[in-house]
Amino acid sequence: MEHLRIDGQRLWDSLMELARIGATPKGGVKRLALTDLDRQGRDLVVGWGKAAGLAVTVDQIGNVFMRREGRNPALAPVMTGSHIDTQPTGGKFDGNYGVLAGLEVVRTLNDAKVVTEAPLEVAFWTNEEGSRFVPVMMGSGVFCGAFSLESAYAARDTEGKTVGEELARIGYLGEQVPGAHPICAYFETHIEQGPVLEDAGKVIGVVPAVMGLSWYDCVVSGMEAHAGPTPMGLRRDALQVATRIMQEVVSIANRYPPYGRGTVGMVQVFPNSRNVIPGEVKFSIDLRNVNAALLDTMHAEMLAFVEHTRVTSGLGVTLERVSHYPPCPFHPDCVDAVRAATASLGYPCMDVVSGAGHDAIYCARMAPAGMIFVPCKDGISHNEIEDAQPGHLEAGCNVLLHAMLARAKVAAE
Amino acid sequence: MEHLRIDGQRLWDSLMELARIGATPKGGVKRLALTDLDRQGRDLVVGWGKAAGLAVTVDQIGNVFMRREGRNPALAPVMTGSHIDTQPTGGKFDGNYGVLAGLEVVRTLNDAKVVTEAPLEVAFWTNEEGSRFVPVMMGSGVFCGAFSLESAYAARDTEGKTVGEELARIGYLGEQVPGAHPICAYFETHIEQGPVLEDAGKVIGVVPAVMGLSWYDCVVSGMEAHAGPTPMGLRRDALQVATRIMQEVVSIANRYPPYGRGTVGMVQVFPNSRNVIPGEVKFSIDLRNVNAALLDTMHAEMLAFVEHTRVTSGLGVTLERVSHYPPCPFHPDCVDAVRAATASLGYPCMDVVSGAGHDAIYCARMAPAGMIFVPCKDGISHNEIEDAQPGHLEAGCNVLLHAMLARAKVAAE
Repeated sequence: MEHLRIDGQRLWDSLMELARIGATPKGGVKRLALTDLDRQGRDLVVGWGKAAGLAVTVDQIGNVFMRREGRNPALAPVMTGSHIDTQPTGGKFDGNYGVLAGLEVVRTLNDAKVVTEAPLEVAFWTNEEGSRFVPVMMGSGVFCGAFSLESAYAARDTEGKTVGEELARIGYLGEQVPGAHPICAYFETHIEQGPVLEDAGKVIGVVPAVMGLSWYDCVVSGMEAHAGPTPMGLRRDALQVATRIMQEVVSIANRYPPYGRGTVGMVQVFPNSRNVIPGEVKFSIDLRNVNAALLDTMHAEMLAFVEHTRVTSGLGVTLERVSHYPPCPFHPDCVDAVRAATASLGYPCMDVVSGAGHDAIYCARMAPAGMIFVPCKDGISHNEIEDAQPGHLEAGCNVLLHAMLARAKVAAE
Repeated sequence: MEHLRIDGQRLWDSLMELARIGATPKGGVKRLALTDLDRQGRDLVVGWGKAAGLAVTVDQIGNVFMRREGRNPALAPVMTGSHIDTQPTGGKFDGNYGVLAGLEVVRTLNDAKVVTEAPLEVAFWTNEEGSRFVPVMMGSGVFCGAFSLESAYAARDTEGKTVGEELARIGYLGEQVPGAHPICAYFETHIEQGPVLEDAGKVIGVVPAVMGLSWYDCVVSGMEAHAGPTPMGLRRDALQVATRIMQEVVSIANRYPPYGRGTVGMVQVFPNSRNVIPGEVKFSIDLRNVNAALLDTMHAEMLAFVEHTRVTSGLGVTLERVSHYPPCPFHPDCVDAVRAATASLGYPCMDVVSGAGHDAIYCARMAPAGMIFVPCKDGISHNEIEDAQPGHLEAGCNVLLHAMLARAKVAAE
């Protein structure tokens, strides 16, 4: 069985065919969750699953499970999956690759007439992107009980339409109770969405964990005044104080390599006029680390620096933590399965901690889970120019195949 | 004559009456140039001038001159003035004080039956604020030939109306050729629009000069990327590089006290999303100094730092100077006249360099000029909460009276 390989061309062709639904002029995809285009995408994938002999079930939040029966149907399935909804200016690979890689694994096993002991399932989760409906990772979140079905149903888009209405409208409001679906192990293949693999010249990223993150809103309040008549010593320049904090965000991250991250992504300056000293500056802070204790340390240092800045500047400075997700280590059994499959296939590989969220985080609450990364061009994702090499996608899919086989076991002939 | 004093209450009452035209609910004034409200304000002031026996002329850009004849009509007049147009959310004192202080000087001389050798004139200049029509200081700028009457006429507001049309519509398109109006000396009283006098506890600011300024647009171009998956070492974070330059703007100003000024007032971050490393940051830089050589040095240091930052960061960094006004020193005779009048009146005073532009800058190209500052509350101007103390306004007007008398000479009885 160790010589079995997936069909890279078939995988690529399926990716390109699915990418036509919601294709944008710039080569990307816009297929927001629970739109007509999402329905078309779902129907296409479900049709492919049925053509491959899979049994399809849908749960009450619209998560779709496509099952290839095992020799022992009583065993919990080895599952793989991701999502097929996209960002408004998304790419062809984010999510879609993880779903179609699972489908390609099934097709390969069908062609080779391989029977597994445990069943295999290919899943796609509802509204991973969170672009149309908040929160992100909605389907897998409801599945694992992170939030309720009712709260998810009530989420509204900007036009006032709810998730519940839209699920029913597109015909994907299933009957299965979310979470009432045992899983033996969960694997997810995904483009890296970062530059690490490409920079290191590796093909496969073994993902030991997903980083934790803390999001903050920081507000510096000074005194708006004319840029000309106000001497430097009499100023209460909110931007000058804010920029000190913005630089410290990066300094804190740099103190905790290799997995410390610090980003100020959003800045608003008031009144934002060329010859007026800023009276108020609001900005976001994003701190991440894969190590929970180090993330706590970074949080404490952020608080201390902000307090120090408040006292020394005499300006108003407030810092509010608006979101926090702890790091999510993946299960050693699944990480090892990915690592072993990669080694046996001989692909250049390295460990890559995921800096972004994935459905696998919520799945990890229900079962042992692991992820497989492949490079994407320039590390770019959530962008119409998102791109990946067919050979890398093929390699990731082969790793998925052998990791799943290792967990599901090939039935004796 | 040294015991002559203006009537502070009459000055205050006139200020409050004029402020009713365009009064805003928050206590400010909205009386944009060449609107119906501006016409009402002009008519009121011209009416007061005529009631005080002044001869009124209007030039082709709508500047209004109200003349109190001297014993020798062949002498050029000693002029004072300012503007009565306001910002969209302006105050009661900016500009208006300078015009009505001049009127109060005339009323005081009338009451005391004082005849001056040289004529006196009270002027108000069209569109000083530049809020409705660009450029600022339009009337005095055309008067001194800084730009042409034709270009001023062609300036359009956001609705497409031109200065030429609007001047004619409100009845202030005069026949006098701008600048064809000799001036012996020009004085302008104004609220400081900064915090220096209030901070020092002084009543009168003697203004030796107006600062020069350079305005720049700076653009830092990095690489937009996800905040999570992108390690610190692989980032091209435009904001982190931009904030270094923003801090240097202030450092440069601090190296050239007491008149160095450095301000970043406007910042735009792209794409300005919480979990995306900024790919581009655009911001403004405002450098000022009263010393031309020091302003040049500050300019050179800014250029050098930006170039250093470009080279060391590896990011794209561009800096463009979009405006430059050299410093404007006032004439020693006029500055001395203000200083002597203040001393003889016994008001606590200090030199205050003007950081903001005034009509006096353009008038200084036509005649010896000087300015008199009085404190405004918290240094706030261009704001509906702009405020000033009646006693300070009265003091400034007394200084104006005696400075003008010193230049115009009281006729022998």
